Amino acid sequence: MQFRQRTHKCGELREIHIGKNVILNGWISRIRDLGGLIFIDLRDRWGIAQLVILPETHPHLAEKAKELHSEYVIWAAGSIRSRENPNPNIPTGFIEVLLDDFEVINKSELPPFEIIDDLQTSEEIRLKYRYLDLRRPSLQKNLITRHRVYQIIHQYFDENEFVEIETPVLMKSTPEGARDFLVPSRLNKGKFYALPQSPQIFKQILMISGFDRYVQIVKCFRDEDLRSDRQPEFTQIDLEMSFIKREDIFSLIEGLMKRLWKEILNIDIITPFQKIKYEYAMNTFGSDKPDLRFGLEIKDITEIVKNSGFKVFTDTFNKNGKIALINAKKCGNFSRKQIDELQDFTKKYGAKGLATIKYQNGEIFSPIAKFLNEAEINQIFEIAEVEENDLLLIIADEKHKCLSALGALRLEIARRTGILYNLENIYNFCWIIDFPLFEWDSTENRLSPMHHPFTSPNIEDLQLLDTDPLKVRAYAYDLVINGAEIGGGSIRIYDNEIQQKIFKLLGLGEDDANEKFGFLLDALRYGAPPHGGIALGLDRLVMTLVGTENIRNVIAFPKTTSGLSLMDGSPSFVDKKQLDELGIQLIKE
Amino acid sequence: MQFRQRTHKCGELREIHIGKNVILNGWISRIRDLGGLIFIDLRDRWGIAQLVILPETHPHLAEKAKELHSEYVIWAAGSIRSRENPNPNIPTGFIEVLLDDFEVINKSELPPFEIIDDLQTSEEIRLKYRYLDLRRPSLQKNLITRHRVYQIIHQYFDENEFVEIETPVLMKSTPEGARDFLVPSRLNKGKFYALPQSPQIFKQILMISGFDRYVQIVKCFRDEDLRSDRQPEFTQIDLEMSFIKREDIFSLIEGLMKRLWKEILNIDIITPFQKIKYEYAMNTFGSDKPDLRFGLEIKDITEIVKNSGFKVFTDTFNKNGKIALINAKKCGNFSRKQIDELQDFTKKYGAKGLATIKYQNGEIFSPIAKFLNEAEINQIFEIAEVEENDLLLIIADEKHKCLSALGALRLEIARRTGILYNLENIYNFCWIIDFPLFEWDSTENRLSPMHHPFTSPNIEDLQLLDTDPLKVRAYAYDLVINGAEIGGGSIRIYDNEIQQKIFKLLGLGEDDANEKFGFLLDALRYGAPPHGGIALGLDRLVMTLVGTENIRNVIAFPKTTSGLSLMDGSPSFVDKKQLDELGIQLIKE
Repeated sequence: MQFRQRTHKCGELREIHIGKNVILNGWISRIRDLGGLIFIDLRDRWGIAQLVILPETHPHLAEKAKELHSEYVIWAAGSIRSRENPNPNIPTGFIEVLLDDFEVINKSELPPFEIIDDLQTSEEIRLKYRYLDLRRPSLQKNLITRHRVYQIIHQYFDENEFVEIETPVLMKSTPEGARDFLVPSRLNKGKFYALPQSPQIFKQILMISGFDRYVQIVKCFRDEDLRSDRQPEFTQIDLEMSFIKREDIFSLIEGLMKRLWKEILNIDIITPFQKIKYEYAMNTFGSDKPDLRFGLEIKDITEIVKNSGFKVFTDTFNKNGKIALINAKKCGNFSRKQIDELQDFTKKYGAKGLATIKYQNGEIFSPIAKFLNEAEINQIFEIAEVEENDLLLIIADEKHKCLSALGALRLEIARRTGILYNLENIYNFCWIIDFPLFEWDSTENRLSPMHHPFTSPNIEDLQLLDTDPLKVRAYAYDLVINGAEIGGGSIRIYDNEIQQKIFKLLGLGEDDANEKFGFLLDALRYGAPPHGGIALGLDRLVMTLVGTENIRNVIAFPKTTSGLSLMDGSPSFVDKKQLDELGIQLIKE
Repeated sequence: MQFRQRTHKCGELREIHIGKNVILNGWISRIRDLGGLIFIDLRDRWGIAQLVILPETHPHLAEKAKELHSEYVIWAAGSIRSRENPNPNIPTGFIEVLLDDFEVINKSELPPFEIIDDLQTSEEIRLKYRYLDLRRPSLQKNLITRHRVYQIIHQYFDENEFVEIETPVLMKSTPEGARDFLVPSRLNKGKFYALPQSPQIFKQILMISGFDRYVQIVKCFRDEDLRSDRQPEFTQIDLEMSFIKREDIFSLIEGLMKRLWKEILNIDIITPFQKIKYEYAMNTFGSDKPDLRFGLEIKDITEIVKNSGFKVFTDTFNKNGKIALINAKKCGNFSRKQIDELQDFTKKYGAKGLATIKYQNGEIFSPIAKFLNEAEINQIFEIAEVEENDLLLIIADEKHKCLSALGALRLEIARRTGILYNLENIYNFCWIIDFPLFEWDSTENRLSPMHHPFTSPNIEDLQLLDTDPLKVRAYAYDLVINGAEIGGGSIRIYDNEIQQKIFKLLGLGEDDANEKFGFLLDALRYGAPPHGGIALGLDRLVMTLVGTENIRNVIAFPKTTSGLSLMDGSPSFVDKKQLDELGIQLIKE
């Protein structure tokens, strides 16, 4: 357990070090024995150094080198010289280390997979051996980028006079929306803490306490049925400000994005970001997180075809539904099979069917053309700006379904035609604003908050709360980058009476509201300032910056979609004694 | 819900602003109506501004001001002028704002206690109304200092090329030492996650992954019976480094302390810190976290009195125990009552009794003097350096009990005589080193790790593992400031065979070890680098910097010693439906 400590890091060696004696510590990445020369690539976090053994002058080193294998940890002492055959592709490629001595610090068994990036090993094996997976350069790079993102965030908010404050992890269960993770209390048997889905209430309390500007990089938890891009624990950049309007949040976050993109990607992004109303985003892109890097906009043709001979269209119109299309440019040559796939795709998104019109060689090919007269066809072609070899994809359905399905189709067409691929290094930022305050929950048959129950209504719509609450716009906003929601927030209610009214509209009785949020209602009585904030998804932000679609590529120790950690085997069974102490037992099946 | 946004913060106004028109937002701290003038102190996070209303020129403002009360939130517009009677005690004390207009933004009910620092309100009430308590200047200051501590930590470790990495909050239960908080898994019914007591294993895994330097400010959790200075969730500065020796950790942490003390307190502390061996600390100060700011050292008199006529002493000697004393200087005039209190105090710390010798006016007063001969008395006086009016406090007991009780007495004497009070702004830093690797667990009748089972033995003592394991020293170290343990760490075992051997010595069978730590043992097989680290208690560090003994003064939303959050009422009962989904139920009493 003795070793000679490094004087330099492998990855920092340059031509200015030539002639210096150095000691390096690291992992053996590769060994090549050319007979007259032995080359060893030694790796540490900073890069790779090439070590050279000359068997002629150092026969004992050459002999010892025979025992070396990949992933052995060694110390190596030698002098830096310039390489005969430089490798300009790596920063250390102009020098090498002529070895005087080395020793093995620790051996390694043969790893279950090679430590390289173009890896064919299954993700399951890689997660089990996460300690080896994390040695891969791309994961190292992702986590170091994540580190830089943290540092930029720390600095930016400190400069802007935010106070970093930790809110509790063990808090009260107030299940609204997603399920809480629960933590049984031993000191208070029969009672439970919950892990925070967000520090929402605490940050509002901090504003009422006068901290004025709060920020925290904070773990949040949701016990949901996991999707591939979700984790049971995830990280938020959570912040709140007092005495502000929503424009203050916009410019603050725009400043942060500007700095992140400049420092991480050396890209100058343009601010202020475009602001798009929810209604417009839904009607035009079929999504409240539109990817604005390309067109393929949705066109409403309800008015054109509402009296057509096609029963599906007229029925839809009569049921107050919507008929709309997108023009898949240059997709007129899609095969029967491709169109079938699009139809299946559409059904997955809840729409009943997909009608198509192809325009090729001046001719129209469409199962529904016979139901439309020439004027209708002409108007459709005009609104859709149809050109040779275009393919119209038409959906008639209940308004929200029609738009969502077309929104999904729009992205699918962009993927299939290579549009998205060509946009990989283009970044489009926008704010979605003017969300409705409520949506109708048809399962529970009541209003439910589109964001959360503390979101302030737009004051221009206050009178609609009593008459037409679904029309009330919220002071809520989402930040969207390239079609991904990076964060969302709102100006909050700071008036106790309005807050109580909202709870009432949500069907939360006075007792219920008091039981769950009584302390917030109390706090609102003692001089709450106007305030608002936002929470940004850090994992998603880093994914965008490093360009990966897999959330597990930006988290050191992620869980699978079943919530398992394959490395440590959690969750796991525990001793009955532990459960006894907590006063709980398993329900027998 | 409309208000005029501030142009300036209350606390930033200075003489350079004289003549400017400003708008302020804040809370009313105080109102004084002098008839001809109305003064309002307006407060925000940055300080207090004095507003003035002239009833003569602004009668409508004077009228409106009658409706104002403490803690109302207002906006106020006016012009800055210099004060006729400056208050040099506050930074804004040279100016005031002559009001043109103001409006109430939000009202406040009468708070249950005044927002001032010399507060007589019970802590219970203050924790219930934490949102008001947090408005007090001292808590604001503490949390803003805590914010600065975070920022210094972020910067310092970034400069030192550490990578900030988040480790999981939902991990595997491996109860060793303290109890884990458990989190039932819904997706894997019958299984549980645990909240981390520390990210120990994950940070070692990160070293094996080659990240070289890891740091994280991280919440940790222990389900212990709480003491007044403990919280169920607490914050650690957790770090780990590869290819290092313990001296590298010392100088790293000394650099951090130097910067913290300079930037927060403007105090230059001297490095390197004193290094004190565990054995010496115990023998001399009766503690492994000695307060070195004062003497009152323990003197061993076993050899002097082992054959004396006092049976308690000879018995103790024969049972391999220890007889030792401290000299409470100038305490010869302690009353019978005071000495009784010290005896009770001693018993609380587990010692059977306390013998005393007073030396006053050249005379000896002691219940045990008659059992000692003159030579023995003389030797005791010499070793204790007795002077007029001194009081010797002697304990004879099993070695560890004797030393611990004298250690506690030493602090008690320092408190009672005002020594500690006079040392309030003195800071003494030291490292305690050479801890034993194991201690004997007499309940379980086996060795247990003094730190944790991953701590490396001192390589000089390796051969003792087989012959006399209790004599093996560990590469473990604690950082102690003024008698408080601020953090602890160690160089870790990086050799799989030694790790297995330690598990065996701890009575952890191979299956057990594999079940609990198998993935670490596996990881150690694939090229683990030498590594070590430390975890510092952030809460305790901030307590030291702001000078409070109450941990709840440095945490925004703390829990009581029963683990309750009085503000939000957690933990709380949850719906049976939630438990059903988790597959658990309460055990009926």
